[in-house]
Amino acid sequence: MTAVHDEQSSRERELTDKVVASFAGAPDPRLRHVLGSLTEHLHAFIRDVRLTQEEWNTAIEFLTEVGHITDDKRQEFILLSDVFGASMQTVTVNNEAIAGETESTVFGPFFVDDAPAVPLGGDISGGAPGQPCWVEGSVTDVDGNPIPNARIDVWEADDDGFYDVQYPDGRVAARGHLFSDEAGRFRFWGLTPTPYPIPFDGPVGRMLDAVGRSPMRASHLHFMVAAADKRTLITHIFVRGDELLDRDSVFGVKDSLVKDFVEQPSDTPTPDGRDIGGREWSRVRFDIVLAPAQ
Amino acid sequence: MTAVHDEQSSRERELTDKVVASFAGAPDPRLRHVLGSLTEHLHAFIRDVRLTQEEWNTAIEFLTEVGHITDDKRQEFILLSDVFGASMQTVTVNNEAIAGETESTVFGPFFVDDAPAVPLGGDISGGAPGQPCWVEGSVTDVDGNPIPNARIDVWEADDDGFYDVQYPDGRVAARGHLFSDEAGRFRFWGLTPTPYPIPFDGPVGRMLDAVGRSPMRASHLHFMVAAADKRTLITHIFVRGDELLDRDSVFGVKDSLVKDFVEQPSDTPTPDGRDIGGREWSRVRFDIVLAPAQ
Ligand SMILES: [Fe+2]
Ligand SMILES: [Fe+2]
Repeated sequence: MTAVHDEQSSRERELTDKVVASFAGAPDPRLRHVLGSLTEHLHAFIRDVRLTQEEWNTAIEFLTEVGHITDDKRQEFILLSDVFGASMQTVTVNNEAIAGETESTVFGPFFVDDAPAVPLGGDISGGAPGQPCWVEGSVTDVDGNPIPNARIDVWEADDDGFYDVQYPDGRVAARGHLFSDEAGRFRFWGLTPTPYPIPFDGPVGRMLDAVGRSPMRASHLHFMVAAADKRTLITHIFVRGDELLDRDSVFGVKDSLVKDFVEQPSDTPTPDGRDIGGREWSRVRFDIVLAPAQ
Repeated sequence: MTAVHDEQSSRERELTDKVVASFAGAPDPRLRHVLGSLTEHLHAFIRDVRLTQEEWNTAIEFLTEVGHITDDKRQEFILLSDVFGASMQTVTVNNEAIAGETESTVFGPFFVDDAPAVPLGGDISGGAPGQPCWVEGSVTDVDGNPIPNARIDVWEADDDGFYDVQYPDGRVAARGHLFSDEAGRFRFWGLTPTPYPIPFDGPVGRMLDAVGRSPMRASHLHFMVAAADKRTLITHIFVRGDELLDRDSVFGVKDSLVKDFVEQPSDTPTPDGRDIGGREWSRVRFDIVLAPAQ
């Protein structure tokens, strides 16, 4: 830390105070508070690292590139927020811990609103390539009471690391929605999750490269679970043993979300008697606990 | 401030620690330090204001707009940095206070490298509209020793608030460079500074509007002063009495840079005997003190 004498630090402090004061007339008190706090933290960053003029230039150029690669299909600002853990911190702040509820994680860009309805025990894969995976579990409240008729949306990448919305032909695959039964239970066939990278051919990927970080996401299966009077849960489950668990590029992994995907030899009978053509498969259990609505 | 219980705050803290740790492998120690600090401050901001998911969405959309309006001519990210005082804080951090030196302020986007040479006492206005202003002063070091042959670049907006680079016809006006004489003195004719707005037809202007801030800059005359073994000074002088002094949109004003531009009735003889056609004019003194090079 560079030594800064009194005159210098009072100049720096006065400037920050002036900028905070400039927001004091904002009619919206929340906007005033958020922009004032942003000013404090932004200035503290500049002062703490003694940001050089050249580094400031680099930052402006970097943001300009992020802006220019962003379009209707590609959202590099979200990637930037993701790799700094800002997306995940926002999720954390907005899903306050309650005793025993299933933890949340990032939403990601691949959810679609109108995923096909799948019956309990049905197959969400829609023909996407990958190893079959039997997923089952329950939905309860924090007191252990079953929640019937919870809407469960699930979506995931295929074996090649692509979501259907990334397919050139527009077909729907590896996503669907179902409802928990009267005992709060659910079950479906999906695919054993596999890792995939976030887009890394832009400025964010270049930054990851410069700091020796990988763009790979740990293997995961997305869930969104909604029920009356409950806080909607947006989360993933991860695969125990995945070597990417401790370096997920967007910091989505939480220990409580890492599950045992148990590999089944090809001659193991399936839980529902389904003929999967003599292939190997896996199974996982995910018991979901919903927090009360706030 | 929302109450956050222990489990919640440990989740938030752990996430920040994980992100900071992800930069630990960066080969460049400075990059590691800067990005780690940025992470700390960014996360502290999100936690402090309990940023909502909707606010995060708004921020992403805002940055996307800033990116899309930015091109070779328009740099909305710099404007954004300016109106948050981040540009000025960077200038402040990079020009450490030394007893008695002239203070720095923002560079701005309107400097050009090859401004015309003007003799001592010459006119930089190049025919730009505005009230003539006689500018004189000295260049010394912090011990009061005159600095001969210092290069003094000056540039300013015309009476309509435009710099020459904003003229459609590409002509050069209201800028020039000269050198201090053997006694460190300088003098030239310029224009009495007038206020002008930063570009406000984009997302940054909309933000200023939402918080009740004006896009106007206080009236000013730009200086860049360079001499051997001295820290190059980039600054402005401002006009005492200007009502915008305490709400300059980019926070460039410092008390020590506010000068008396003394209005002269039309019949006042000019210091150099120049005939300015019986118009009113003004005069200002600016004694420049350069810090040693670091
Ligand atoms: Fe995903
Ligand atoms: Fe200016």
